Parts: sequence; C-alpha cells; structure tokens
Amino acid sequence: MSNVDAGVPAPVAGRKGLANGFDFSKGTAGLSPDTVALIERRKRTLGTLGPLFYNRPIHVVRGSGAHLFDADGVDYLDCYNNVACVGHANAHVREAVADQLAKQDTHSRYLQDEVLDYAERLLALFPEGLDRVSFTNSGSESNDLALRMARVYSGHQGVVVTANAYHGITALVSSVSPSFGTAIPLAPFLATVEVHDVLTGDMPADRVRAVLRERFVAAFRKLHDAGYGVSAVLLDQIFSSDGVLPGAQGWVADVADMAHRAGGLLIADEVQSGFARTGDAFWGFQRHHADADLVTIGKPMGNGIPTGAVVYKAAIGDAFAACTRYFNTFGGNPVSMRAAEAVLDEIESRGLLKQAKTVGDYICDGFASLLAGRPKLGQIRHAGMFIGIDIRSDDGSRPDPAGTQAIVDALRDRDILISASGADGSALKVRPPLVFTTADADRLLAAIGELRDLGYFG
Amino acid sequence: MSNVDAGVPAPVAGRKGLANGFDFSKGTAGLSPDTVALIERRKRTLGTLGPLFYNRPIHVVRGSGAHLFDADGVDYLDCYNNVACVGHANAHVREAVADQLAKQDTHSRYLQDEVLDYAERLLALFPEGLDRVSFTNSGSESNDLALRMARVYSGHQGVVVTANAYHGITALVSSVSPSFGTAIPLAPFLATVEVHDVLTGDMPADRVRAVLRERFVAAFRKLHDAGYGVSAVLLDQIFSSDGVLPGAQGWVADVADMAHRAGGLLIADEVQSGFARTGDAFWGFQRHHADADLVTIGKPMGNGIPTGAVVYKAAIGDAFAACTRYFNTFGGNPVSMRAAEAVLDEIESRGLLKQAKTVGDYICDGFASLLAGRPKLGQIRHAGMFIGIDIRSDDGSRPDPAGTQAIVDALRDRDILISASGADGSALKVRPPLVFTTADADRLLAAIGELRDLGYFG
Repeated sequence: MSNVDAGVPAPVAGRKGLANGFDFSKGTAGLSPDTVALIERRKRTLGTLGPLFYNRPIHVVRGSGAHLFDADGVDYLDCYNNVACVGHANAHVREAVADQLAKQDTHSRYLQDEVLDYAERLLALFPEGLDRVSFTNSGSESNDLALRMARVYSGHQGVVVTANAYHGITALVSSVSPSFGTAIPLAPFLATVEVHDVLTGDMPADRVRAVLRERFVAAFRKLHDAGYGVSAVLLDQIFSSDGVLPGAQGWVADVADMAHRAGGLLIADEVQSGFARTGDAFWGFQRHHADADLVTIGKPMGNGIPTGAVVYKAAIGDAFAACTRYFNTFGGNPVSMRAAEAVLDEIESRGLLKQAKTVGDYICDGFASLLAGRPKLGQIRHAGMFIGIDIRSDDGSRPDPAGTQAIVDALRDRDILISASGADGSALKVRPPLVFTTADADRLLAAIGELRDLGYFG
Repeated sequence: MSNVDAGVPAPVAGRKGLANGFDFSKGTAGLSPDTVALIERRKRTLGTLGPLFYNRPIHVVRGSGAHLFDADGVDYLDCYNNVACVGHANAHVREAVADQLAKQDTHSRYLQDEVLDYAERLLALFPEGLDRVSFTNSGSESNDLALRMARVYSGHQGVVVTANAYHGITALVSSVSPSFGTAIPLAPFLATVEVHDVLTGDMPADRVRAVLRERFVAAFRKLHDAGYGVSAVLLDQIFSSDGVLPGAQGWVADVADMAHRAGGLLIADEVQSGFARTGDAFWGFQRHHADADLVTIGKPMGNGIPTGAVVYKAAIGDAFAACTRYFNTFGGNPVSMRAAEAVLDEIESRGLLKQAKTVGDYICDGFASLLAGRPKLGQIRHAGMFIGIDIRSDDGSRPDPAGTQAIVDALRDRDILISASGADGSALKVRPPLVFTTADADRLLAAIGELRDLGYFG
C-alpha cells in the first residue's frame, strides 16, 4: 500500500486549504538548496498533510523576544505568533521548566503542589462561578472536553458555531469547524451562523445585536426541530478564522442568555483570545460581559510547552463526574504547570495586558495613517494585539484574497512575518507575541510604507 | 449554577470507576493534615472529576530513577509509572529541553530541523511501509487522528476493540473505550470482542488464535450488517486495561489480515506497549508480527513532556490529505522533539530494551518462587516490564478484586507503588520505569515476601 514517491494528492471536492500555505504541488523551483533539502526531507517523513507557510518557507533555528532567526542569521520580525506570547526563548519560562525537570514530572493521580498552585492562580483570573478546571494538552483537547461536558450537563447534542469557525482537530471538534470545508462531512448536529457581514459593516451595534439574536434563534430552532436540541454555542472570542471580529461588544452576552433559555451552554473558546491578547481584559468573553459556562484555553498558556485547560462552573463538572472520569496523563503535569505559571508571571510583571492594548492601537493607527485614502485598504479591526485588516480590490469594491496574499509574501521577502485570515483569506492577520514593542511596530510600519510606495495598496 | 460546596456526585448507572482510586465520598478521616489540606485544595479547584490514587494518596515532590519522594523525604519505589521510562528527573532529557528552550519553540508551519531529525530517527524504528508520521500531544490525540484517517481511507465507519479496552479521552476515542462504562453511551458503530478468557487460560496458542479469528469475524459481520463496515480494529498491543494479555503471539497478525480483507485497517495502539516496554521488540505489534497500518504512540515518548504521534503507511496519509489538513499547534514542537530524542538516546545507550526483558523476567520469577503453591496466586503474565498478576480468592476458585486492592494498599504502606488492572481489577499491575534495576526488584520482592508471611496470599 505504501508509496514513498507518491505525488501530492489532488484535493477532494469540498476541501478548504489554508491561507498562506505552501503549495507542495508546485514543486521547489527557485527555492534555496537548504530549503529544497528540508522540504524533501519533510515530504519523505511528514508527507504533505501538515501545512507549511509561505511560497518561500522559512527555516527557523532560534528566536528572541518578537524575533525569529534562520540558519543564515536573518532576523525575522514575528508579527504572527501568539503561542510565544511572552517572547521566543523566554528565560523565565526556561528556568521554571528546567527547575521542575530536575525535580519530577509525574501526573495528577498523585497529590502535587504545582497543579494546585497554578489552578488556584488561574481560577482567580476568572469571574466568580467559573470555579473548576481540568487540564489538557491543547486547545483541541480542551474544546473536545468542553463539548463532552456540555452534552452531558444539558442532555442535548446540538452545537452552534460561526460560519467559518475553527475550533481544533479532534474528530468531534473538527466536525464542528466549517473552516476545514466539507470533504469530510461536518456533524449532522451542527448549525452555523454567519456573523462576518454584520460585524464588518457600518451597522450600529444595537442593530447588529438584534440581527445576531435573530440568526441564533433560527439556529437553535433548526437544532430543536431536528431533535438535537442545543448543548452548546461554541464561540472563538475573537472570531479569528472568520476574519478577526472584535466588534459589537455585548452580542456574545445576548447569545449566552439565549443559549441558557434553550437549555444549552456557552463555551467561550479563548484558545486564541485569552491571556491578555485582546488588551481590554484577560479573556475575550469579558469584553462582551458574557455569562460563559465553560472556557477553553491553550496556545499561549505555556509559551510553547504543550498545555491547555477547560474552566467551568462546578455543577457542570459534577454532572460529568457522575457519568465518567477524566484523567489526562499529561494534563496538569508539573512541567507544563511551571511553564504556565512563568507565563502569568511575565504577563503580570511586564504589564503585557496594557502593552497589548497600547501597541495594538499603535500598529492600527500606523496602518490607518500610512494608508489613508487608499481604496485597497478596507476595514481595520482589532482588540489589543489581535488585528485583522481587510484588503480590497483596486477600486475598493470587493475583497481581494490575491492582493492580501501578495502583501503577506512581500512582507515575508522583507523578513516580516504575518498571515491572512477570513473565509476568503482577504484580511491581513497581525498577531504578534505580546512582548512586541513600538520599535518592532515601527519596523512593520516602515515596510508597509515601502509596500504602499511600491503600489501594493493601489 | 455554581456550588462550591457541592458534595461528591453520586455515580450514574453504568459508570465504571478506576481501580485503586481514592474515594472522595468517604472523606479524609485518618489522613495526615498535609494530605487533607491538599485534597481540600484539589476539591475546590479540580473537583472530583480527575481520579487520585490510593486510599492514602501520595504527595509527590521529587523523583530520581525509579524512585519518587514525598515532602517528608519518604523514598517510594516506583513500580508503576511508564511515562518516566528513562527515569524520573532524567538529566539528559532535562538538558535537551533546556537547551532547546534557549533556542526557540515554534511550530511545524516553519521548516525546522528538530522535527525532521526526530521523524527520521523514529521512522527508522518501524518496519518498511510504515513511513509517515504526524505528531500530536498525547496518546488520545493520536488514537483520535488514527481513527479519522482510517475512516477516510477505508470509507467505512465501524470500529472493533477488545471488551474492556481503554484508548483515551477525546469524544471519539472515549466512545470506543468500554472501560469507561456506559453512563455516557458507547459509539453505535462499535463492536467489542472478549479476549481475556482465552488469553488467560491454558488453551494451546493455535486454538486461541482460531477462537479469536471466529470472534473477530463475528464482530466484522455485526458492523457490516449494521451498515457501518469496518474502518479499523484498534488494539492496545499489551491489552493493559483488559488485564495485561501478552499471550498467543501471532493472533494480532491474524486480525490484521482479516481486517484488510474486510476493507479495514489495523491500528496498533502502542501508547502503553511501545518504546521497548515489552522487552521483546521496540513495539508491541512486532511481537505478533502484525501488519499494522497505523501505529499510535504517546506516554513514554517524551519522558513526561507532552508529545505523541501517529505513524502510518503513506497512502493513508495521502488519502487523508486529499480531504483535509492536519495542523497540530504543539505537535512536533522542537522542545517535545528534543525530549523525545533524548528518550531514544537513553533507551539505546543504556540498553533498556534488554533491561526491560531481563528485569521483567527477574520480577516474575521472583513472584513465582515466593508464592509457589499459594492458591491466591493466579496467572503471572508479562512481556518485559509490563506485568499482570492475577489474584484469586483464598481457595483459588475465582478472581479477588478486594484482595488485589488490599495488596496494592499494603505495598503502598510499605512505600512501594503498583496498581491494579483488568475489567474487575483483579490483576496486580507492575509496570516500572525501564531503568528499574534488579536491586529495585529485590526491594519489591522483599515486600511481597513480607506480605506473604502476613497472609496476603493465603
């Protein structure tokens, strides 16, 4: 059955690709010998299932703060990576991990200080009522567990997400992630709600909230009529894959209240929006003052050391515990907990919540003033250091995914790393490590000015 | 909804507990003040969803080799933990992790040496044909991905597992893990096969293989008749939760061949049996000479640093890649890869495959000679350092779960850590770190001799 030299498989109808992905089917002509060699090694071991960024992929060997370096010493400005939130090669995280590895790294079937110390500190960051936590190894495991808990607690099966949602890669979670497309069928118990149109237009917030209430009611009714009921509304609290949609604060609170009346729960997916990213609050759902029942976290939690968690109301955990047990071998292991604790230390001691806001504002102000009046510049949306910038056709009349990708590539050629987002890939995605400074921002903005002068923005 | 002081929820019908679990509903009378304080902190943060070992839980603060230590400096002999396969607080793993954390820890959407170096080294440990790998963060994520791949490749949905199988904790994987019970319903597309009876009796191997062939044919037929077909037979290659069943080598090969004829695949779950554990071969499925299509790994892979993987035939990955992408944020991250590489270094340089065999044999010989003629001693089964020892009633007529637990507890009181296994919890489970020595074994065996003299073995 095996075929080492198999080419790149042709996509099945319904498969959605990744914005800014390297196209393995185009071969490696024009790339450096080092890059070609690494891509060949990769194809022979990892195959082409895992995406690679850029037409000219980058070979990363070290990092520092918001900078990554390749084997030739090229200094890439990292305007993309949220995982290394307190900076690449952070010394405090490293020391905490190394210290713990000199002690022990077993699991939570023994009593241990590390998991309890971190659990207490984490829960103190949540509103009253969100008072229990179960640890996992990734955002995907967190969303998978949260959905399982919501189903048991509610007694229902249906799930509601946004139209281009991404929530992770387990069988269940990917089946409620329409951003993968439909080559593998989505779950029958899924209802989706389009939010991009109203959250990117100029509709007043009150009207947006009224429209979204109607749409969610329709989704709930669909699931009810199909016999599934509503177990959970699962919402990324920055709506990253839908194009970065921080607007109309409060609409998520409406949806939570409606979900509760429908017998379901709100799961706030904070895998991307959590840990001070949005600048306004430590968690994205707090920007909406939403009554979240479960909150899922991951990516930046350990600055790259795998760890995640679900935070939830105690009664939900009790209902689940009555039906099953949840032991995650690595979940809450002392090394991951120490890394996660070091991340909180850094966020707090270095004032990164405030920095996310001030530097995020600074970047967006810079884009706005550099590109004022350019038809290709669409809406700039952001909360803190999570930024989406729509790129439009030359006459400003429609989204321009190709123009967006051209800007991403031109920045990469200038050693600056961003990516694209949205259902059609027509929004620039700028989401740097939280330690990103105004000096870093100036380098990004200088490159944007250069691209502007070269005609990339019309 | 929240209720911090809620008691311990009463189990729903069908819920299966964990062997050797602390019973939160019994309270903390008789435990040390330190233990009581930690359990109270745990209940207020983690709740009671996650299991805790022993009637008298252990507070672990450091480790070394096959030894764990509590806050009072008590030296526990670890005869249970397979994750820390190259020893607790292993210096080589620690140095590799600390070195990498000083460099960078991003993800596989950039080209990186660490993931390719490890992928090549890992794949070299597999038979020809198993030539692709995707990295995950846990055995659960690995089994979840393997099942997704098998479904896409085969075009079928049905899954076959053993009668008390445990394969992990995602929604999909837990729904094919009957060891959780049925309070949360098992998957409708699941068929189970009892293997414990024939693999623990005195039936000749040829006859065992013939009986199991018949039982798997019946399972395939059931799935076929229900319209699911057979996507995969998913088998833990040491059958840990079924009671540790290394016997009748070759029967898994029969099942693989039959699965192929039914249009399905064999997924060898090596999360527990992999990485030299069985002493006979690096992977458990090699003991059976089975033609595995996908192999899932996890637990010991990074000595506690979260990491896992699925190894598979290239054509399976190509079929899956044609339908979707698989990007796991932490999967294959450089820190996990360096930890995993250090584990292979240690297994190879310290000869731990051979040690698993010799010390595993030594432990079993010791049990057999110490307890010869005792009716309570049932069958001793093992491959390498994965050991199951049946404990029977005083007259030897039936399994004795309570007697098994009494021995586990008596050993814990002597600072020796083992646990219990099997559908009814009537097998002692002995599964130490691979660095466990004959001197360590002598300490275990001395305690067994003491328990024998105290009447624990009739």
